[in-house]
Amino acid sequence: MRNNLTLRSIGTIRSPFKQKFGTPRQSGVVPLATGTIHLDPTFAPPGCLEGLSLFSHIWVIFHFHKNTNETLRGKVHPPRLNGKKMGVFATRTPHRTNPIGMSVLKLIDVNEEGLILSVSGLDLIDETPIFDIKPYISENDSILDATDGWTEKMDLQNYQVEWAPNALDSLNHFNNKNHYKEFVEQTLSIEVRNLEDKSKNEMKNFKSLLGEGDVEFKVCPESLVVQVINLEKKEK
Amino acid sequence: MRNNLTLRSIGTIRSPFKQKFGTPRQSGVVPLATGTIHLDPTFAPPGCLEGLSLFSHIWVIFHFHKNTNETLRGKVHPPRLNGKKMGVFATRTPHRTNPIGMSVLKLIDVNEEGLILSVSGLDLIDETPIFDIKPYISENDSILDATDGWTEKMDLQNYQVEWAPNALDSLNHFNNKNHYKEFVEQTLSIEVRNLEDKSKNEMKNFKSLLGEGDVEFKVCPESLVVQVINLEKKEK
Repeated sequence: MRNNLTLRSIGTIRSPFKQKFGTPRQSGVVPLATGTIHLDPTFAPPGCLEGLSLFSHIWVIFHFHKNTNETLRGKVHPPRLNGKKMGVFATRTPHRTNPIGMSVLKLIDVNEEGLILSVSGLDLIDETPIFDIKPYISENDSILDATDGWTEKMDLQNYQVEWAPNALDSLNHFNNKNHYKEFVEQTLSIEVRNLEDKSKNEMKNFKSLLGEGDVEFKVCPESLVVQVINLEKKEK
Repeated sequence: MRNNLTLRSIGTIRSPFKQKFGTPRQSGVVPLATGTIHLDPTFAPPGCLEGLSLFSHIWVIFHFHKNTNETLRGKVHPPRLNGKKMGVFATRTPHRTNPIGMSVLKLIDVNEEGLILSVSGLDLIDETPIFDIKPYISENDSILDATDGWTEKMDLQNYQVEWAPNALDSLNHFNNKNHYKEFVEQTLSIEVRNLEDKSKNEMKNFKSLLGEGDVEFKVCPESLVVQVINLEKKEK
């Protein structure tokens, strides 16, 4: 029996991650990655957010809208596996038959009238279309004795983030410079390079638009250091 | 920005729950509710299940296909709240803008060639269309300090299940009678009545098709007993 279902976007997320490169691959790993979900009033009948603020976390079901890959592949290369392949349904890859993702986010605030949710721990790209919001219910969703398959004991590499003097100077252009600095450090402390760049392992310069800043950096895997070499504030 | 996405059913579940009434409202609460997910070969490219058997649990994203409600309501009555309303996005109700559900199920077996997954702890109705399968990754999905909002401390009522002599006799027609008896007991030990029947609180007879049996029972809330008064084996 064929059964298709057309999902309607009920809202959009505003996130500090403007592009795929630099966006965390899991929710919660960059706690300072805060953003807002803006619900479309068309799909937000009166009272639809009532009671949600009692929960500390929510599930967001969203569209992997930057996934432009049309071919259906059986296996993918999870970034953490350094080139080893894994079946698509044994991973959380965006490159799946139905390009929907689910992220658990920390719920900071619910603006019921404005239909805006403030969240943190984002791993979603700016303007990601949202299909559903559900409360996180630990009684049901938290499986303490779950076995994590190939992801177990695969510690995320933690880089030390260092700032070149001129990049440190540029921080003064930011409104909340300490918060922004810490947000960039949390984001870059995790391996952001893709497999190809990791295997080449050249000392090339990378660039990512993080929040209001264009961040240029180098990754030094031997010393486990990421060096921010340039920072440019973007006009909104 | 409007953004629609058409999901294609990648498979179907075979479940012992044949109708909405009697189907658990959460996954995991009836551990003996076992079933199989059958993937459609069209959407199962070679190797797509490789590595999945290393995980103990999976997320299944599915269609609330028995949800025929067309009107969009802002608030719903969660069964556990005895009549109190709650915003639709603060609940896991099937009656949501995009009728998609997510359940975490225990993974018992992966038949990679046959494209069949055996699972338990089901809360899905037979023939539910499946849109996605993702591994449960406790490092990411298990939030130990989450606050469960209105669902906290709302213990599921646990009924004692008793069998009338003729119903007990009928168990002999079942292949694995002990397993079936325990499955029925787990299912009926949780409040299965809807709000309307709960508030009327009459001693009426209920019927639910559970696995291969048509089960007739009475609920006695005062004594916290569910009495199975009749059991009829259905031909497959």
